[in-house]
Amino acid sequence: MSENPDEKLGIIERLRRGLPAPELSYVADREGIGVEEIVSGIVKGEIVFPANRCFPLKQKPCAIGRGLRTKVNANIGTSTEVHDFNDELAKLRVAVDAGADTVMDLSTGGPIAEIRKALLAVSPIPFGTVPAYDLITRFCGNGNSIHKAVVDDFLKVVEEHGEIGVDFVTVHAGLTTEALSLLKSEGRIAGIVSRGGSFIADWMLHNGKENPYYEYFDELLEIARKFDLVLSLGDGLRPGAIKDGTDKAQIKELSTLGELEERALSRGVQVIIEGPGHIKLDEIETNVRLEKELCHGAPFYVLGPIVTDVAPGYDHITSAIGGAIAASHGADFLCYVTPGEHLRLPTEADVREGVIAARIAAHAADLVKLGERARRWDDSMSRARFRRDWEAQIRLALDPKQAGALSGKEIEKGEGCTMCGDYCSYKVSERILANKGDSK
Amino acid sequence: MSENPDEKLGIIERLRRGLPAPELSYVADREGIGVEEIVSGIVKGEIVFPANRCFPLKQKPCAIGRGLRTKVNANIGTSTEVHDFNDELAKLRVAVDAGADTVMDLSTGGPIAEIRKALLAVSPIPFGTVPAYDLITRFCGNGNSIHKAVVDDFLKVVEEHGEIGVDFVTVHAGLTTEALSLLKSEGRIAGIVSRGGSFIADWMLHNGKENPYYEYFDELLEIARKFDLVLSLGDGLRPGAIKDGTDKAQIKELSTLGELEERALSRGVQVIIEGPGHIKLDEIETNVRLEKELCHGAPFYVLGPIVTDVAPGYDHITSAIGGAIAASHGADFLCYVTPGEHLRLPTEADVREGVIAARIAAHAADLVKLGERARRWDDSMSRARFRRDWEAQIRLALDPKQAGALSGKEIEKGEGCTMCGDYCSYKVSERILANKGDSK
Repeated sequence: MSENPDEKLGIIERLRRGLPAPELSYVADREGIGVEEIVSGIVKGEIVFPANRCFPLKQKPCAIGRGLRTKVNANIGTSTEVHDFNDELAKLRVAVDAGADTVMDLSTGGPIAEIRKALLAVSPIPFGTVPAYDLITRFCGNGNSIHKAVVDDFLKVVEEHGEIGVDFVTVHAGLTTEALSLLKSEGRIAGIVSRGGSFIADWMLHNGKENPYYEYFDELLEIARKFDLVLSLGDGLRPGAIKDGTDKAQIKELSTLGELEERALSRGVQVIIEGPGHIKLDEIETNVRLEKELCHGAPFYVLGPIVTDVAPGYDHITSAIGGAIAASHGADFLCYVTPGEHLRLPTEADVREGVIAARIAAHAADLVKLGERARRWDDSMSRARFRRDWEAQIRLALDPKQAGALSGKEIEKGEGCTMCGDYCSYKVSERILANKGDSK
Repeated sequence: MSENPDEKLGIIERLRRGLPAPELSYVADREGIGVEEIVSGIVKGEIVFPANRCFPLKQKPCAIGRGLRTKVNANIGTSTEVHDFNDELAKLRVAVDAGADTVMDLSTGGPIAEIRKALLAVSPIPFGTVPAYDLITRFCGNGNSIHKAVVDDFLKVVEEHGEIGVDFVTVHAGLTTEALSLLKSEGRIAGIVSRGGSFIADWMLHNGKENPYYEYFDELLEIARKFDLVLSLGDGLRPGAIKDGTDKAQIKELSTLGELEERALSRGVQVIIEGPGHIKLDEIETNVRLEKELCHGAPFYVLGPIVTDVAPGYDHITSAIGGAIAASHGADFLCYVTPGEHLRLPTEADVREGVIAARIAAHAADLVKLGERARRWDDSMSRARFRRDWEAQIRLALDPKQAGALSGKEIEKGEGCTMCGDYCSYKVSERILANKGDSK
């Protein structure tokens, strides 16, 4: 650790006391807004700034929440089946290159502590984890189960992640005995699909005890305060099938997360709320509004949502549909889903496609949420298109590499494209409407 | 032609007279509804059945409109830059194989009449065209322009397409002098992006005359009646940039299409209404509701919509977002957009990706529009997933080829997948919740 964690306050407390937070200027500049908007959002709990305060600021920090650009997270990490150190470092580079705002290491296979440290050491973007996975990997396997973990183990893994410099952690603190009993009566098709959630539920049911992250939430907050660790309150009961979406269990957990959010904020701990999952397209708006109501405007971090179960191999698209709709209604943070979700651990190519699809969804939503501030990009692109300026179109493209790869021939010719050839509507428009577009 | 066109009536007139239409049974069966629903929809103009009545029924006909599965069209065809006969035949096969419901040949390069006939001869699905492209290719090029075409030419190309067996044609009949003058005052970034629309506007402005398809709409209806040709009333002024979306010119044209739709229906001619285009995500619902109001519930056929301008190379995704939202609010027919839209004429691979993305959008919307009728598929998939039945997951996948390609390793192992490895939430759920899912 670079400094004594007790000597400094978390960002909420600093801002509440009117102390300076120069690290927010970079973020405000990148958003194109005044720093006071971000300060006000953080104090109200509507914006988070994930940055472990015991470690140097990441090269590209970001803030997440109301009034800001929708952010994109990429999940990487090993599993028991696939765990190559270099693969994960490569995936991190691909995710950053493709424009991910944050990354989460979800490793559960191989030397996970070493992999995590290696990734953390080079990540230029805020870094998240799910500490409960350490419980799973330590206690399970070889015929053993999570049953023998004790409450202290649940808290210790979170502290360990803070100590190495993690910026935000998922903790499934709303998965209570009550929510679990609702779930059992729902008759879901897909049960619990959250990995952390399923193992915590297993522990709870076997030991007949409440979820330690819920019961000892104050202790969890103390740990979070030490590092200014952002708590991403996970939805262990998120639906994993369209039919299971927006049921009593899911909403009970969300409601509990709202109570925990208030307690965290009062202690100066930053909170994100996690959301679904598989839900029908027309349930997305309700889910977002409910989160904003029940969780007092806290940033909403959705996994997808995935709007149909039937397209394995294309879940970057099913989730781009859901993510765009969710963010347009106020979700703040999209966890990417890769084409191979439901089929395999993502490859480098999957990571790239996942990040790009989520960024498309985020920007489509930002056109709604942020208006002209977001639309300037589209206007520049459309002007370049109207004047057949291929170089500008490639440069402005959300993914210049892909746009360049598909348009090589056109750039050489400098005019028109193979789509319309000689019969280009832009050329006709330009001539008959005397509309040259702006010069930019 | 296989029979005398005057001896038979169009389907609307047959159904109005209570005559049988046995060809609808296949369609009703595929939709899983009673044939009377389809009959009632066709008579009201809310459903169309594109099938040139002078030619044998296609192998896989379909109906399009209210209460039915959202349909997907694939555009294929040559341009002046790229025109290989075999490429287009291959694209047709790919489109059908990927699950397109209809196909449109938009050829403007090479021996287009021969290409069209060759495609028509083998197409197992309803076949559409844009007859005005024949005007463009006949009159333009080598320093000539469309200006010299006469009214008769505009009508003749439509008749020619009916005569060879085309099932539905796009005609930009709502692009009036008044709509055009509104457009000129809008100061659009991208002007007119409809190819047919831009050339018709050129003809109108140069000759100082009204659009022949509008002025001689009755004559157009007579031609359509001959073949029971479905008129897809095109939106020549559709927006081609986010900023240009939902402007006065676009809405004026839509309103005119609504008037034409009434006239067509009263003459027993089936009509589809075409819609945008590039529009902001939160304008999509309004566009669909407006179409349904102004055009009396006629089937709405949207091109995308594309929800951001900045993602060339990924416009199958930008349009899947828009298409899913449009269809969930009532759009009936999605024209696919390929990854390379804005960059190049689609390749075979582009066609495949475009069809699949549009089908994902269509099905996500059908979960909203059709409820359990659509959801059975998702439920079966989720049950297969819960029991880790990889064979069933691949078989049930919207694109089994892609799902199979990404999951080869898992099927061999027969249990779990590389994503969670040993720590599979389904296995935990199954054990702790005693929820085995249904047997199906």
